[in-house]
Amino acid sequence: MPDEPAPPPAGDHPAQHAPATPGEPLRVEVLSAVFQVRTAGADDTPTLCVLLRTPDGSTSPGAWRTLPGGDVGTEETLAQSAKRHIADDLDVAGLAHIEQLSVFSAPHRVPGTRTIASTYLGLLPSDADTRLPDGAAWVPIDGLDPVALPLAYDHGEIVDAARHRLAAKLSYTNIAFALAPEQFAMSELSEIYCAALGYTVDTTNLLRVLSRRAVVVATGTVRKTGRSGGRPPALYRFAESELRVTDEFATLRPPM
Amino acid sequence: MPDEPAPPPAGDHPAQHAPATPGEPLRVEVLSAVFQVRTAGADDTPTLCVLLRTPDGSTSPGAWRTLPGGDVGTEETLAQSAKRHIADDLDVAGLAHIEQLSVFSAPHRVPGTRTIASTYLGLLPSDADTRLPDGAAWVPIDGLDPVALPLAYDHGEIVDAARHRLAAKLSYTNIAFALAPEQFAMSELSEIYCAALGYTVDTTNLLRVLSRRAVVVATGTVRKTGRSGGRPPALYRFAESELRVTDEFATLRPPM
Repeated sequence: MPDEPAPPPAGDHPAQHAPATPGEPLRVEVLSAVFQVRTAGADDTPTLCVLLRTPDGSTSPGAWRTLPGGDVGTEETLAQSAKRHIADDLDVAGLAHIEQLSVFSAPHRVPGTRTIASTYLGLLPSDADTRLPDGAAWVPIDGLDPVALPLAYDHGEIVDAARHRLAAKLSYTNIAFALAPEQFAMSELSEIYCAALGYTVDTTNLLRVLSRRAVVVATGTVRKTGRSGGRPPALYRFAESELRVTDEFATLRPPM
Repeated sequence: MPDEPAPPPAGDHPAQHAPATPGEPLRVEVLSAVFQVRTAGADDTPTLCVLLRTPDGSTSPGAWRTLPGGDVGTEETLAQSAKRHIADDLDVAGLAHIEQLSVFSAPHRVPGTRTIASTYLGLLPSDADTRLPDGAAWVPIDGLDPVALPLAYDHGEIVDAARHRLAAKLSYTNIAFALAPEQFAMSELSEIYCAALGYTVDTTNLLRVLSRRAVVVATGTVRKTGRSGGRPPALYRFAESELRVTDEFATLRPPM
């Protein structure tokens, strides 16, 4: 039996890993774009909102806003760090989904020390109750305005990347489970898709596609509405609460 | 017109960004899993291979192997750094696709200084000619053996993550354009899918699905073969050489 080669001694990194500029100070921060579809505006339109905060809890209108986040601790992974920083504002148990977005690494994205941001997308169901500390707020994404509500550094680009990722995944995964309540009428789900995508989605087509792919299933119950008139709507739920690709080529599935 | 708030002075980071442990030394490295489908074995079977190297160009059989990579330079992004390190081994002009994988950040993944790895998936067409320097080699992924060919640290997990990402994207994107030659018979493309997925793919079904989705198109020409007998196979090409999701729900497309 061949001997297993001894692992390299601690601290003895391969030569190719020697820093290009030894000792250059470097920071790694974690930033999360946390989204929830919330009613907003005079007519309570379901609207995709992002969680923003002021660094010091300030509520002054001109204060810079940042995504929740901060430095990574010595004994935690980036994902643990992301959840720890979100927990400053929210009960993270309510987060139905969190995933890595890309890393933002432009050399001077933050003035001073070189700072590389590892970013996350977090999603909350629309009925999750959130009580926020001072200086934190849900802000409609379409209402982000660099003058009225200035975002720090490249945090606006991170929100854009998160929204782009969400829209893409709505098209080939079941990710909407993380934005929807446990049970919903299809018209409600359609409003959530519309808020997240930015354009209208036909409820009948949505039900047809999501049913055929076994993404949503009927609960067999109807909504008891207080409103008079009209048939009470049938209720549905997502079949799963873990992300999966709903749409693999039949030919590319692994053999049973 | 409202005054635009002044940006925070350089180096004056929001309080939440103060390091958890000020001054803790931290390294960020870039590591790339570069894949190519290559013929291997006695019967020249098309096989998914990964580019591995020894840190010092050693060709000794027991030497540790690493993914190409290293530290990020002061004035480059992580993506630029990834390409720079790959260029030590390969002509990067041959890379048909490169994308970020996830960040590997377990606190003690590398002994000594805390080291966070930002990882990339790179793909080369099967007919790209690659001449490698000493100590670099294409290794069949299914032949990776921790005893015969020990990989450094968590580099084996990074290869697994890269392969998983590739297999997933083969199912809902046109990513195979980056593994295939410019023109190909469908039986050849089927072999490439099979090598990347790890199971057999039916050529007729593959052609049907990829044609219907306008992922591949016929060139109108046939292969001039030296072999006698049999009809010369029709040639195809990918319609695009940029990654796109091939499979969006019709109902979720933005309005024209």
